Amino acid sequence: MVSLTHSFPIPRWVLLTGSNRGIGLGLVKQLLRTPRPPAWIFATCRDPAGPRAQVSAGKGWGFSSGLLQLNDVADPSTITKAVKIVEEKLNGTGLNLLINNAGIYNSEASLERVDAEEMIKTYKTNVVGPLLMAQAFLPLLKKAAQESTEKGLSCSRAAIINISTMLGSIEKTPQCFFKPVISYRCSKAALNMLTRCQALTYREAGILCVALHPGWVKTDMGGQEVGPSQVQGTAPGQSQAETQVWGDWMEQS
Amino acid sequence: MVSLTHSFPIPRWVLLTGSNRGIGLGLVKQLLRTPRPPAWIFATCRDPAGPRAQVSAGKGWGFSSGLLQLNDVADPSTITKAVKIVEEKLNGTGLNLLINNAGIYNSEASLERVDAEEMIKTYKTNVVGPLLMAQAFLPLLKKAAQESTEKGLSCSRAAIINISTMLGSIEKTPQCFFKPVISYRCSKAALNMLTRCQALTYREAGILCVALHPGWVKTDMGGQEVGPSQVQGTAPGQSQAETQVWGDWMEQS
Ligand SMILES: NC(=O)c1ccc[n+]([C@@H]2O[C@H](COP(=O)([O-])OP(=O)(O)OC[C@H]3O[C@@H](n4cnc5c(N)ncnc54)[C@H](OP(=O)(O)O)[C@@H]3O)[C@@H](O)[C@H]2O)c1
Ligand SMILES: NC(=O)c1ccc[n+]([C@@H]2O[C@H](COP(=O)([O-])OP(=O)(O)OC[C@H]3O[C@@H](n4cnc5c(N)ncnc54)[C@H](OP(=O)(O)O)[C@@H]3O)[C@@H](O)[C@H]2O)c1
Repeated sequence: MVSLTHSFPIPRWVLLTGSNRGIGLGLVKQLLRTPRPPAWIFATCRDPAGPRAQVSAGKGWGFSSGLLQLNDVADPSTITKAVKIVEEKLNGTGLNLLINNAGIYNSEASLERVDAEEMIKTYKTNVVGPLLMAQAFLPLLKKAAQESTEKGLSCSRAAIINISTMLGSIEKTPQCFFKPVISYRCSKAALNMLTRCQALTYREAGILCVALHPGWVKTDMGGQEVGPSQVQGTAPGQSQAETQVWGDWMEQS
Repeated sequence: MVSLTHSFPIPRWVLLTGSNRGIGLGLVKQLLRTPRPPAWIFATCRDPAGPRAQVSAGKGWGFSSGLLQLNDVADPSTITKAVKIVEEKLNGTGLNLLINNAGIYNSEASLERVDAEEMIKTYKTNVVGPLLMAQAFLPLLKKAAQESTEKGLSCSRAAIINISTMLGSIEKTPQCFFKPVISYRCSKAALNMLTRCQALTYREAGILCVALHPGWVKTDMGGQEVGPSQVQGTAPGQSQAETQVWGDWMEQS
């Protein structure tokens, strides 16, 4: 677990999906609490005022105006609208970090029960969404990479982080087959492949692309049964989603 | 390359998809030429009389009645119909081998160009199809495993073979990134995950599940540029699809 007081370089302009709850919300909170927080976080979510939102514009984060509606990560027209708003705010600057965090999971999707609809729905959100988001924000990411005085690849220069999971690792499947969740596993294996292709393609442009397993985190998706080994480092008053995720992804990026 | 005169046990009842051309057709021909060919091959294809078919019922294979129409490997109602016909023919016996060979590939699908529709279409044929086929034929595969006097897992007892590709290997991507083919790579990585899940789930029932890379083969999909190293062992008068594939998959199964 990395301490958040470490002085690693924090990206200036960050956009992430699924920010209204769970790991997305935890990430926003963590980023805002770092000694030198980003200039702006475009914290996108589907429904800022919806029943599952644990935050709403103007309260909860100690910052108000970053909350940006993005109805569906796999819907091109929604994404186009979001790009316009982001471009306006950036006013000629590039975007340093895109975090594709939004995702879905169906715990009932065993090999016997899973159907075509469930397979497609999960693939759309977990793979097609991150692909379309990266396509749409690529010009802004390239701009950030070009503007940067940093050399090499880093999150503070220009990066795409796709939030994946150990359950998407084919190699590790025998050790973590406690739940089959076929639609989820297949989608995340594909997301890992997408990330590898992005890494190979965008490296030349100075954009780091990584897929990250955030650890097992207490969220609506992760459930409440997260064991003690998974939540080490959680400080009092913080949700498990906060320290766990942040620590892991900074270590790998 | 394995010689086809080797006396490996050949499955008695085989069903495969995409049999009208390419690797599927090559597999059918090879199986029929073995010293003790299967009792029956359910050689399914979408359109036995269509313009791309290199074979039609009654000619080309030296056997006529195995050709079975299966309109779309990802369409449940089509599959249900095929199961009924197969059950009738099997008359109480089990099915030994299901080969999910049908697949699609779009050589233009770069990271910049690929869209949601192309991603979904490819996933449907290359992943959802094999999943639905396995679900539907599972009772017949289980029956074959139970009836068999063989112990352990084998193609001649009961097996599912998903025809995959090296392009679906995340580890090998840096060495074979000559064409991005994003929709194809993501779908085949997901197919590999599906196969791993099937292997872990159906092992207990005595069903072998493997994903196979057939090698690079001259077909409509593979193209005509297959180099000499890929076609070693091709005998005069045989299409490259024949020996290459057969050899590889028998070695691994
Ligand atoms: N929790 C864990 O233990 C764990 C472990 C490994 C990986 N992960 C990964 O971490 C990421 C976040 O997981 P989480 O536990 O925070 O999940 P969560 O609590 O269920 O939250 C999911 C988030 O994704 C959003 N979302 C879902 N579908 C969307 C769509 N089509 N368009 C836009 N937003 C959408 C949700 O928005 P709504 O509120 O509008 O539904 C919500 O904000 C996921 O990618 C997940 O696979 C989680
Ligand atoms: N060729 C290679 O070098 C190579 C290398 C690695 C892996 N593979 C894999 O090997 C398998 C066969 O490839 P191939 O080279 O023989 O391809 P191909 O020549 O393009 O033939 C594809 C076959 O799949 C059928 N098909 C496609 N979509 C279908 C659907 N929705 N429902 C039912 N059938 C469908 C086609 O039927 P129609 O004739 O009706 O279109 C055709 O029979 C594929 O899974 C491919 O990914 C090939």
